[in-house]
Amino acid sequence: MPSQALPDAALQSVLAPVLTPFDATLRPDKAGFVRLCRWLADTGVGLAVFGTTSEANSLSTPEKIELLDALAAAGVPAGAIVPGTGCCAFPDTVELTRRAMAHGCAGVLMLPPFYYKNVSDDGLFASYAEVIERVGDARLRIYLYHIPPVAQVPLPLALIERLLQRYPRTIAGIKDSGGDFAFTRQLIDAFAARGFAVYAGSETFLLPTLAAGGAGCISATANVNPAPMLRLARDWRAEDARAQQAALDVVRQAFQKFPLVPALKAALAAGTGDDGWRRTRPPLVPLDGAQRAALFASLPRDFALPKP
Amino acid sequence: MPSQALPDAALQSVLAPVLTPFDATLRPDKAGFVRLCRWLADTGVGLAVFGTTSEANSLSTPEKIELLDALAAAGVPAGAIVPGTGCCAFPDTVELTRRAMAHGCAGVLMLPPFYYKNVSDDGLFASYAEVIERVGDARLRIYLYHIPPVAQVPLPLALIERLLQRYPRTIAGIKDSGGDFAFTRQLIDAFAARGFAVYAGSETFLLPTLAAGGAGCISATANVNPAPMLRLARDWRAEDARAQQAALDVVRQAFQKFPLVPALKAALAAGTGDDGWRRTRPPLVPLDGAQRAALFASLPRDFALPKP
Repeated sequence: MPSQALPDAALQSVLAPVLTPFDATLRPDKAGFVRLCRWLADTGVGLAVFGTTSEANSLSTPEKIELLDALAAAGVPAGAIVPGTGCCAFPDTVELTRRAMAHGCAGVLMLPPFYYKNVSDDGLFASYAEVIERVGDARLRIYLYHIPPVAQVPLPLALIERLLQRYPRTIAGIKDSGGDFAFTRQLIDAFAARGFAVYAGSETFLLPTLAAGGAGCISATANVNPAPMLRLARDWRAEDARAQQAALDVVRQAFQKFPLVPALKAALAAGTGDDGWRRTRPPLVPLDGAQRAALFASLPRDFALPKP
Repeated sequence: MPSQALPDAALQSVLAPVLTPFDATLRPDKAGFVRLCRWLADTGVGLAVFGTTSEANSLSTPEKIELLDALAAAGVPAGAIVPGTGCCAFPDTVELTRRAMAHGCAGVLMLPPFYYKNVSDDGLFASYAEVIERVGDARLRIYLYHIPPVAQVPLPLALIERLLQRYPRTIAGIKDSGGDFAFTRQLIDAFAARGFAVYAGSETFLLPTLAAGGAGCISATANVNPAPMLRLARDWRAEDARAQQAALDVVRQAFQKFPLVPALKAALAAGTGDDGWRRTRPPLVPLDGAQRAALFASLPRDFALPKP
């Protein structure tokens, strides 16, 4: 059940920040990317392409546009796609957001500009306003991306309130990757009644987020474990919901023992038999053989490797 | 006297991370940029265009290329230019670095990819190596850019040692904007004898850096106060060197009471009479009238506003 909190009942309750495969020269592998997106969309999760897990900030703007165009050309439904478009420079953010709109994407997930630190709320408000005004499209739905451990630029409640006051239809929700459920709950309490969709940034918080009135989760691990997440998102009022959550947590914890993106890529490589999936762009580094062995030993016996 | 530490005796002892002016629609103002670069080059400081002070990460790659091309077209000597080329995505870094080489720039100042945090030395080494190998030009001189307060991705000594071992001619120096002179001294002690040029990231450390065997400074304030910095860099063994340093510090401290980039732009606006100089791209915000008044009241009476 997509939560009552969704503004247009458009987004899925679980979205995967889709991993980006690279060829031997570290160019994005379009065919592999389309294949993973199709497989994920077929399971029913939404496609939050170009997220942190996607190494999106290690891709140039033209590379992201090429991948988005490839999804459209392959007939992957745009209504399932919520690309990350937030860059440091607003011309890039505007260009990517316009392209997402041209393809009819369900929305965009937007980081604040993340180079400067300790910026003012005025500056963050202006960053989002500049993009919204320049894109100038009433269909635009922005999901804010709060990920202070990585971006080091948090999105305070007062900023979100101000954005919602000024752009009530455009500011559609948030992905909260802060790892602090108290803040997730504050977001839900403050804004969910206005149709603002709050997604946890990890399935670790899927059940509490849904129980509190949030919309679901956008989680790295959805690349490799989508079906059980979708089941919990659908059945979170069922008697076995806590057991389902606990089972999700075991898988998450196994991957989290390692650098997460390389670990997820190792699982894709093992599932598909294509070692190319292990490649990352620097500054991320693939797992070595010992790490891969330790990862697979940590996963539950019944864990099904992803086979897109 | 350009320090003995310079590998090709090419770079100036003082470089300005040149401010970027914007027009009313927040596009880079090429004519104003060329004017400031010419004025700075005429004083004798080097042009570290596209630094943190330049709002470089708020510019798209095509915008930076257009500005670099404009400097070449205007006949600003490429030997005085050390553009910042380090981006999160290596295709951008490679493209900008190649363009800098094509114009014959003296070198490039290169941030590490700065989105992911707590990355490994292996990942940082791979980031620089990937760019160096792809650019594949023996003339390339890279000045590393260590600015943990902003990028939140420090460059440890062990990484620099490894880069110097592998690329002894290419890795030419560093800008240390860490604000910790003990680290600057460690850099000089470890690497200066091998021709590695250590620049302080602020003129606050100009005298101690030169006295310790470093190369000079690359400092935001060089946009507005270049001549006194150059004088100290030239005369740092003179009797009045400490007094010169103290005078520089007074000016620096006045600007540092405010967000630095907007404060420097306010000084340019006041000096040129062109209020357009006040504009910043979000997330930076221009100083308001009260802040500007307080800034000008804080500056020493004999401070000459820049008039490019």
